[in-house]
Amino acid sequence: MMPNDFFSDLLSTISGRGRTLLGRASSQQRLTADDVVALCDALLSSRGEASGTAVARDVLDAYAQLDADGRGEVFAALAHRFGPDDDRLRKAAQRWESDPTDATATDLHFASEPRRQELFRRLNRAPGATRELVAMRADLLECLAERPALKVVDRDMVHLLASWFNRGFLVLRRIDWSTPAIILEKVIRYEAVHEIRGWADLRRRIDPADRRCYAFFHPALNDEPLIFVEVALTESIPQAIAPLLAEERVPTTAERARTAVFYSISNCQKGLAGITFGNFLIKQVVEELRREMPKLDTFVTLSPVPGFLSWLKSDDAPLADADRARIAGIDATADVAALDELRPTIEPLAAHYFLKAKNGRGQPIDPVARFHLGNGARLERIDWLGDVSAKGLQESAGLMVNYLYRLEDIEKNHEAFVNQGVVAASTAVRKMSKPEGRRMLDLRLS
Amino acid sequence: MMPNDFFSDLLSTISGRGRTLLGRASSQQRLTADDVVALCDALLSSRGEASGTAVARDVLDAYAQLDADGRGEVFAALAHRFGPDDDRLRKAAQRWESDPTDATATDLHFASEPRRQELFRRLNRAPGATRELVAMRADLLECLAERPALKVVDRDMVHLLASWFNRGFLVLRRIDWSTPAIILEKVIRYEAVHEIRGWADLRRRIDPADRRCYAFFHPALNDEPLIFVEVALTESIPQAIAPLLAEERVPTTAERARTAVFYSISNCQKGLAGITFGNFLIKQVVEELRREMPKLDTFVTLSPVPGFLSWLKSDDAPLADADRARIAGIDATADVAALDELRPTIEPLAAHYFLKAKNGRGQPIDPVARFHLGNGARLERIDWLGDVSAKGLQESAGLMVNYLYRLEDIEKNHEAFVNQGVVAASTAVRKMSKPEGRRMLDLRLS
Amino acid sequence: MMPNDFFSDLLSTISGRGRTLLGRASSQQRLTADDVVALCDALLSSRGEASGTAVARDVLDAYAQLDADGRGEVFAALAHRFGPDDDRLRKAAQRWESDPTDATATDLHFASEPRRQELFRRLNRAPGATRELVAMRADLLECLAERPALKVVDRDMVHLLASWFNRGFLVLRRIDWSTPAIILEKVIRYEAVHEIRGWADLRRRIDPADRRCYAFFHPALNDEPLIFVEVALTESIPQAIAPLLAEERVPTTAERARTAVFYSISNCQKGLAGITFGNFLIKQVVEELRREMPKLDTFVTLSPVPGFLSWLKSDDAPLADADRARIAGIDATADVAALDELRPTIEPLAAHYFLKAKNGRGQPIDPVARFHLGNGARLERIDWLGDVSAKGLQESAGLMVNYLYRLEDIEKNHEAFVNQGVVAASTAVRKMSKPEGRRMLDLRLS
Amino acid sequence: MMPNDFFSDLLSTISGRGRTLLGRASSQQRLTADDVVALCDALLSSRGEASGTAVARDVLDAYAQLDADGRGEVFAALAHRFGPDDDRLRKAAQRWESDPTDATATDLHFASEPRRQELFRRLNRAPGATRELVAMRADLLECLAERPALKVVDRDMVHLLASWFNRGFLVLRRIDWSTPAIILEKVIRYEAVHEIRGWADLRRRIDPADRRCYAFFHPALNDEPLIFVEVALTESIPQAIAPLLAEERVPTTAERARTAVFYSISNCQKGLAGITFGNFLIKQVVEELRREMPKLDTFVTLSPVPGFLSWLKSDDAPLADADRARIAGIDATADVAALDELRPTIEPLAAHYFLKAKNGRGQPIDPVARFHLGNGARLERIDWLGDVSAKGLQESAGLMVNYLYRLEDIEKNHEAFVNQGVVAASTAVRKMSKPEGRRMLDLRLS
Repeated sequence: MMPNDFFSDLLSTISGRGRTLLGRASSQQRLTADDVVALCDALLSSRGEASGTAVARDVLDAYAQLDADGRGEVFAALAHRFGPDDDRLRKAAQRWESDPTDATATDLHFASEPRRQELFRRLNRAPGATRELVAMRADLLECLAERPALKVVDRDMVHLLASWFNRGFLVLRRIDWSTPAIILEKVIRYEAVHEIRGWADLRRRIDPADRRCYAFFHPALNDEPLIFVEVALTESIPQAIAPLLAEERVPTTAERARTAVFYSISNCQKGLAGITFGNFLIKQVVEELRREMPKLDTFVTLSPVPGFLSWLKSDDAPLADADRARIAGIDATADVAALDELRPTIEPLAAHYFLKAKNGRGQPIDPVARFHLGNGARLERIDWLGDVSAKGLQESAGLMVNYLYRLEDIEKNHEAFVNQGVVAASTAVRKMSKPEGRRMLDLRLS
Repeated sequence: MMPNDFFSDLLSTISGRGRTLLGRASSQQRLTADDVVALCDALLSSRGEASGTAVARDVLDAYAQLDADGRGEVFAALAHRFGPDDDRLRKAAQRWESDPTDATATDLHFASEPRRQELFRRLNRAPGATRELVAMRADLLECLAERPALKVVDRDMVHLLASWFNRGFLVLRRIDWSTPAIILEKVIRYEAVHEIRGWADLRRRIDPADRRCYAFFHPALNDEPLIFVEVALTESIPQAIAPLLAEERVPTTAERARTAVFYSISNCQKGLAGITFGNFLIKQVVEELRREMPKLDTFVTLSPVPGFLSWLKSDDAPLADADRARIAGIDATADVAALDELRPTIEPLAAHYFLKAKNGRGQPIDPVARFHLGNGARLERIDWLGDVSAKGLQESAGLMVNYLYRLEDIEKNHEAFVNQGVVAASTAVRKMSKPEGRRMLDLRLS
Repeated sequence: MMPNDFFSDLLSTISGRGRTLLGRASSQQRLTADDVVALCDALLSSRGEASGTAVARDVLDAYAQLDADGRGEVFAALAHRFGPDDDRLRKAAQRWESDPTDATATDLHFASEPRRQELFRRLNRAPGATRELVAMRADLLECLAERPALKVVDRDMVHLLASWFNRGFLVLRRIDWSTPAIILEKVIRYEAVHEIRGWADLRRRIDPADRRCYAFFHPALNDEPLIFVEVALTESIPQAIAPLLAEERVPTTAERARTAVFYSISNCQKGLAGITFGNFLIKQVVEELRREMPKLDTFVTLSPVPGFLSWLKSDDAPLADADRARIAGIDATADVAALDELRPTIEPLAAHYFLKAKNGRGQPIDPVARFHLGNGARLERIDWLGDVSAKGLQESAGLMVNYLYRLEDIEKNHEAFVNQGVVAASTAVRKMSKPEGRRMLDLRLS
Repeated sequence: MMPNDFFSDLLSTISGRGRTLLGRASSQQRLTADDVVALCDALLSSRGEASGTAVARDVLDAYAQLDADGRGEVFAALAHRFGPDDDRLRKAAQRWESDPTDATATDLHFASEPRRQELFRRLNRAPGATRELVAMRADLLECLAERPALKVVDRDMVHLLASWFNRGFLVLRRIDWSTPAIILEKVIRYEAVHEIRGWADLRRRIDPADRRCYAFFHPALNDEPLIFVEVALTESIPQAIAPLLAEERVPTTAERARTAVFYSISNCQKGLAGITFGNFLIKQVVEELRREMPKLDTFVTLSPVPGFLSWLKSDDAPLADADRARIAGIDATADVAALDELRPTIEPLAAHYFLKAKNGRGQPIDPVARFHLGNGARLERIDWLGDVSAKGLQESAGLMVNYLYRLEDIEKNHEAFVNQGVVAASTAVRKMSKPEGRRMLDLRLS
């Protein structure tokens, strides 16, 4: 936003390589990865201090012109040439080994800091830089698959971004029909759970009196939501997504609403992958809603089960051979009536999937389950045919589930889950995993 | 701002030490340093994650109740008990020594991170915490004098605060008569150079058309200026402070103003001592002013010389014995007319003070000189009797100086100063330090 | 926004008819027009003063429940029962006649004020009332066609609304992609000239660097634009609308833009019909654009000619019999190539339409022409096939025109137009209306 | 805010008197009242319409240069030369007399409108004009004393200003320590009841948790409060002002506050004299406070009695001859202990003053009493020695009173006061006016 003519003037007077680079930049000649790295060196030098934010801006502008190969080269240089100062590190390590005190340990920590961390901090001084650094991290993630050696750069970027996007700096804002279009457009684009089909669909999710949407924002990325959650206010815990999103539905009045349903939570920034906001978002939205509507007493999700069908079709699922073929046929185009006949077969397996099946680290297979259970929620109910869209059938044979956030149990559930791998679940779900439970459930529902 | 009743409820249900602590907190019983440390442990544990920001808030609230001794105990615990994980550090050091790669070096860096850094980051998650962490750093600085072992804690706090108060996150705002009183009040309080004597005096500095005041703010400390600078717009470079601040002066019209005078720059936050904003502030204000008023062509300070008189009275000053006694008599109550007779003696010594006298690190003795010369300004003029207030006489025998910020020289000056200790100065100042120069100057001025 | 419980309490304690009415209101019983009129009486009584804004709110709420018939009855009562106080008026008239002074004339004016004016002013005290009064005026306009006696009510409403929506109270705001969706949605809905087909189309009109949209707002109707204008920045005066609105067009850079084209101006509030903002809007937007982009030197419209084709087909058009049949066949589905053959016939008639044809009041027939010429613009060019959409063909056989706003001519043009009916037009347009001019034009274009 | 260079250009091209005037304006030559009147003529002419808001700005700028005599001449011209159009008025009067219908009566009303009303409306179109029109009204009020013939101009200004400052357009804002200094400075200046002695005193009135200050603002006068009220939250109804304003007082906690005391209400704009906001302000602040603090159950004033002592010393007071001399001696320097001996004499007279003494229009003599009783409050208590400041002694022999706003009585009190002149008062006050009541009161208090 702030013009840099002060420093454009300034830099236009300097001599040497800097002048060459900037001459090229202004003559619209394309800069190379080597040029970017040379500018990074300049930024870390004394000259970088004198020029305030101008060299940082030059690095970012030059980087923005690179193609994927060029970016990869820059990241490689960051990995290999911008690590810690070897000499300083070696001395600090020796001092600590010969005299391991609080002071020498701290020295060792600061001596081992890769120089790229200071580079990123200096880059961040330029106006608008935070947004570009987030984008740079997204670029890095793309390179990472093919170049695992860049992992060291990623650790530093994640470390800094996590510190800068500390929850204390985030601002919760409600998203509604008074929100600027530039933000709403991003909500449409980033919605990852139940696609928003245009502006009319968006309006149905944020404008009615029984709908809420909240997002976290960072002051340095003013028109970019970081993560948002969509909430429906209902009388009771819903069993299916379609009625919640139906065009022709009667809104729940404030007087009758007792339940807040978190039916979609979406991260917006690829460059912030791995930095978790969801836990904080849900908890703060619960606080907001309780303050605004003291009558609400149930806070629950209506969640997809993205890993279920592929697990069900895998060898890991304890399936009778007779069932295996029928289940193999389920896909995005499955006939719902036919599918419904499989309910007695699938439901106990679903309970098994949540309660007993584990991944390599001893955690539930389902990523959504790991998120909510890790937050201290409990698995409240399995919703048969909760999502019969193509996506729902494809992912989970139509299954959805509710995770319940009960204030008084959150910490206990979280600790049991983290420390002992215990999955908090309602009695109904527990019984479903046992044959007799299954039968009782059938009786109750019939 | 956000009530924490969600988690107050939550925490009221937990058992063990936590319950005891919180019970005490709510019963208004005073918590001890040990309690605070126990809460810090809880915050770093798994429980801290589940409870979101509530335990962080508890730590901060409990800390706020401690007296100076209690705070010292907490800092001592942070120094000794919240350092790096010894075992993890030792293993990482061994791996790096046996195989020093980018990856093992990075591992070593993260393994050596003191656990208090993560603690501070988690504390910062609580609403309003950043302000409290800045205050905590101010507390720490008070303890540091007597407890040098706390230096390790300070390095970590400075590291984190410098990252969080990165220039890219700061917002420049103009301070004027439309600014909220809660901020103006702090400008009055924090002004460190030329005292502001109440609201009428303040208004004379920020409201007239030829005055400007700018400050940096951080989004998490909304009504706290971090640093501010006061600017007068004038026709030419001023030689004394009193006419600039006179109650009965005729404002300079926008048409005639060619010079922007930075006559006072004050840091506001003790807890951010050592984290420099001044360099960035001056440069951005120059940009702002140039954009608003393209006719401005001179950017200059009118600065105090806080170390001059005590140096002049010291053995370091190359003083003729005859003069030594007369100079020893100068103090806050000096008679200006009598002082003026010493001009031929003192001015060359002043030039010497700036150009030749050095501190232990080979830098100028004067802290204000170090700041502006380090920013790339040059010493433009020595202003005899520029400040004849008691403070001005006391500090510098009434001397003031102008530092000139010339765009095309900033980087060159900065590099020469940092790398070779060269002090950029005008010809007039240079000549003043030589006897013949002195004579020429006398002729010119007579 | 402000709850009225204070006065709900208050009013629930009163006796008589008021209590009955309010009892009914709270029991959700439908109020009648008579009830509304009774509440109007209460509002004008002393009781109305004591209760602050509560009775005003009651009137508006009760009115909002009425159907079209009920509203008509209320307006009839306003016309007949809320006129001036007869007795007071008669006495003031007599005094003025026997002694016509400044004072008695003023007395007569205030004595003749219909009581409904005070009623509307009191209604306007309620929170949010201005919006409802504007809507009430729209209701009144619907009734007016069938009930001309309500004209007296309309004069009073127009009088008050014109005073309240005085240009001095309006705020110009830019509409862009950062504008809240609730406002953008209304821009889509109210666009009256070139339909906006959804959000993507809207974005093409307000987001690119060479597009602008500005609207007037009133502080009491915060999210309701009153009137807005869409502007395209171009190199030269455009001859057709389609290229301006094309999905795949290359934006004009700021460096090359010399012309601001006002291609659509739309009123948004039916209830403010007859209160003109357009004149002020265009002039202020010209000022805004000149300040932002000093290189702009041409301010011009690209305007429809809504009355042309129906005039052309009427007996008023001086048409050769041979042409009459061919012209009678032009409609929304006209073939453009065939139409183009009629250019030598139609263009001189178009010039005649603008320059010579007049309505009953001696003004141009075309309403858009009356607006821009009345503002002091001049007719610059007739754009053959400027709008070949169905609507453009239907209204004007595809014709568009440019009106040019030249600063130095606005007042002169306006005065000549208002006082002598002179239509300011370029030489090119003037020549087009004469046979020889027509030939010269043909030569020039060939 | 919006530059008018568009029209400065424009107007610089016109010929005739306008050019002369504007030439003079730009040459800094002083304009005369005749010039201003000529510009007013231009503004009402067709030229005024074409030029948008430029001529309006010229009138206001030219008016601003006039001295008091010049302003008086302009107002005289407005009174005599900008009345209604005589001819049009005469015809409308005749039509109405021969055929008195709704339509002819309305015609008569509009025909009798003084042309200065339209003039003021057109003036108001210029940016910032509303503020200048309010100032113009203040000028007019100064002239009015000596020139009663200007009353006709005042009626029109009041009529328009009352409509423009309709309560529906006013915005209630809280004034606190976050309010811009430019507004706070005005609160200090305009406080009319209990003088604010500088910024520290101001802060004590707006910053503590048990203090509130609210003001009405108009969107066109953004940094000008129109009227403000200062509120203290207390446990019970206070009897004296000094403890409320004491520097060293213990704030009332939110838990204990049951009473909101309106202890000062001040109008800020001389130019809006006679346009009442106070009624609406008190009622809306009551609503605000009730919403924020539901425990508040008593809304009361602590009010001065400005007319009491001069009445007491007048022949109107039913004073025993023996008392007359002692009372004649009371003034700003009265000894409080001596005064206290007169309590049995003065209190019954105070009750008489409020309950029985009337001015020429049959209303209470005291203006503050008329205001609150007219709003529907009741006189709750007479506070002996409530204000022993010099001003308090001088005005009312130290007396203060509390007016109580009880929701359920406001309308009843108001109607009884307006229609039958009944003063609502507590039993205690009533009894005080009777000898036996006086005695009982003595007993009760002893």
